[in-house]
Amino acid sequence: MRYHLGWVDQQGEPQAGSAPLSLQPALALASCEALGGDFRNALPVAASVELIYNFTLIHGDVQAGRADPGNRPSVWWVWGPAQAINAGDGLHALGRTTMMRLAQNEVPAEKVLRAVRSLDMACLTLCEGQYMDLQFQDQMMITTAAYMDMIGRKAGALAACAAESGALTAGAGDEACAKLGQLGMKMGMAWQIARDIDDFWGERGDGMTPSNVLNKKKSLPLVHTLENSSVSVKRELGSIYMKRVLETDDIAKMIEILDSTDARQASHGKAQELVDQALAGLEGVSGITREGMDTLADLGQWAVAGGR
Amino acid sequence: MRYHLGWVDQQGEPQAGSAPLSLQPALALASCEALGGDFRNALPVAASVELIYNFTLIHGDVQAGRADPGNRPSVWWVWGPAQAINAGDGLHALGRTTMMRLAQNEVPAEKVLRAVRSLDMACLTLCEGQYMDLQFQDQMMITTAAYMDMIGRKAGALAACAAESGALTAGAGDEACAKLGQLGMKMGMAWQIARDIDDFWGERGDGMTPSNVLNKKKSLPLVHTLENSSVSVKRELGSIYMKRVLETDDIAKMIEILDSTDARQASHGKAQELVDQALAGLEGVSGITREGMDTLADLGQWAVAGGR
Repeated sequence: MRYHLGWVDQQGEPQAGSAPLSLQPALALASCEALGGDFRNALPVAASVELIYNFTLIHGDVQAGRADPGNRPSVWWVWGPAQAINAGDGLHALGRTTMMRLAQNEVPAEKVLRAVRSLDMACLTLCEGQYMDLQFQDQMMITTAAYMDMIGRKAGALAACAAESGALTAGAGDEACAKLGQLGMKMGMAWQIARDIDDFWGERGDGMTPSNVLNKKKSLPLVHTLENSSVSVKRELGSIYMKRVLETDDIAKMIEILDSTDARQASHGKAQELVDQALAGLEGVSGITREGMDTLADLGQWAVAGGR
Repeated sequence: MRYHLGWVDQQGEPQAGSAPLSLQPALALASCEALGGDFRNALPVAASVELIYNFTLIHGDVQAGRADPGNRPSVWWVWGPAQAINAGDGLHALGRTTMMRLAQNEVPAEKVLRAVRSLDMACLTLCEGQYMDLQFQDQMMITTAAYMDMIGRKAGALAACAAESGALTAGAGDEACAKLGQLGMKMGMAWQIARDIDDFWGERGDGMTPSNVLNKKKSLPLVHTLENSSVSVKRELGSIYMKRVLETDDIAKMIEILDSTDARQASHGKAQELVDQALAGLEGVSGITREGMDTLADLGQWAVAGGR
């Protein structure tokens, strides 16, 4: 677990450098502050959602057979799939336990239970999203609506829980918490779209993180192209996807087709639209500070940029 | 998830017959009743630990590569490892959510939190146990002490949580809850030993559930033999275990060796000893009924018999 979180290397020696910030914990802290709370009260929420997010990454690497998800080998590549599944299970349990630490921050039991319940529902929902994502790999035609439903569960639910629970720790009322939850949902979806874009045009090596694409994952650029292209372009993409195993040449061809339908710009536009909606939803939330709205707007732009 | 629980078949059609009872939910209900409570109050605990136990089975089948764990194919064999990992994650989340239903039974928030915390710790601990169990597969010499430590985490912790939380729902005090937790721990360990015995001498087909053995899992009969046999017997076992892949003939030979060192009787005796200790620990627990002790004693014998 420590290795995956970037704290130690494969030999268990402490590793220099800090792990990159994820959207979910940032949302928890920013939502708390935006509603006039002290971000320190939201640290258990932030740590909790970060651990849960990382459990999904460890399992996701096994599920996708990703050997090298970032700048170093994945847990299963180093310790085998069995130990990786178990390490993910451990982070899942640890993430939930961590939410209970809210009780140490003088948060009353009723509110702790509410945050815990929100996290539980988010965990269930993200499994639903992951189910759909895996299922979509075997299907060719996925609509934008189905895709949006899937990422709402897979990526939106945990971000919604983060923002909602962050607001809760600021002592916000039900309506403000719900509004922040809606913001988190939309920002989480925007962030997922930004990552989809990175899968095709990202900065890694030759400009791709190929395994998501090779797994026939249905990302928004692809869904957009399938919905908005001529029959001949659809056929071309279909003939690539009908192959049992995709190769690097196929990906170059796919990117060429996606570029011809403006898939990148359209996807980016969708992400921006979600963030705009998210921020518009904050108007009139009682107790929200001007400064807090600015911070959340910055976070939205950061999400649209894929967390860079 | 429904398929794994035995409610539906592979096509999603309802399946006749009920799933076999597991030790953990039975402990939750019996502990509640033994302390004068209505077992219905403990149903959320029972359902919760049953779901958690089943999450470990789904993941365990993937981790061990077990295609046919009982009387039908495992989830990963039918839907692939990626979906099986996800189905296990879903049951993990669902199991925890289920514990929250205690709140619907008029259990105060503080006590619900305590049961949830107990479950979280049990989930973490069972991952530790699973880590050790997987690790032991690559080692030849495991001591009985190390084995007992491992099964205390892997099997004891969840059973302890079940019994402790069951007692909690009866309104029992801290000391009684802790005592029932200790009983659960010991019964869970006894049950694991009984299953280890089944791996070698069980009733399936030719009298073996070979995959646990083929995986070089270190079960008590094997640990006992390695600790209590002559150098030549150790060498013989070692030469089998040094093979990269075990075959059915190797298992027949192993069983012959285990039989020569009384491993089955010794393991069975250890399980019985644990149950005796568990029951002895109940003496003087305030509020426990005579009838409740008898039920727990029956449950202990059922555990020693491997849940049959």
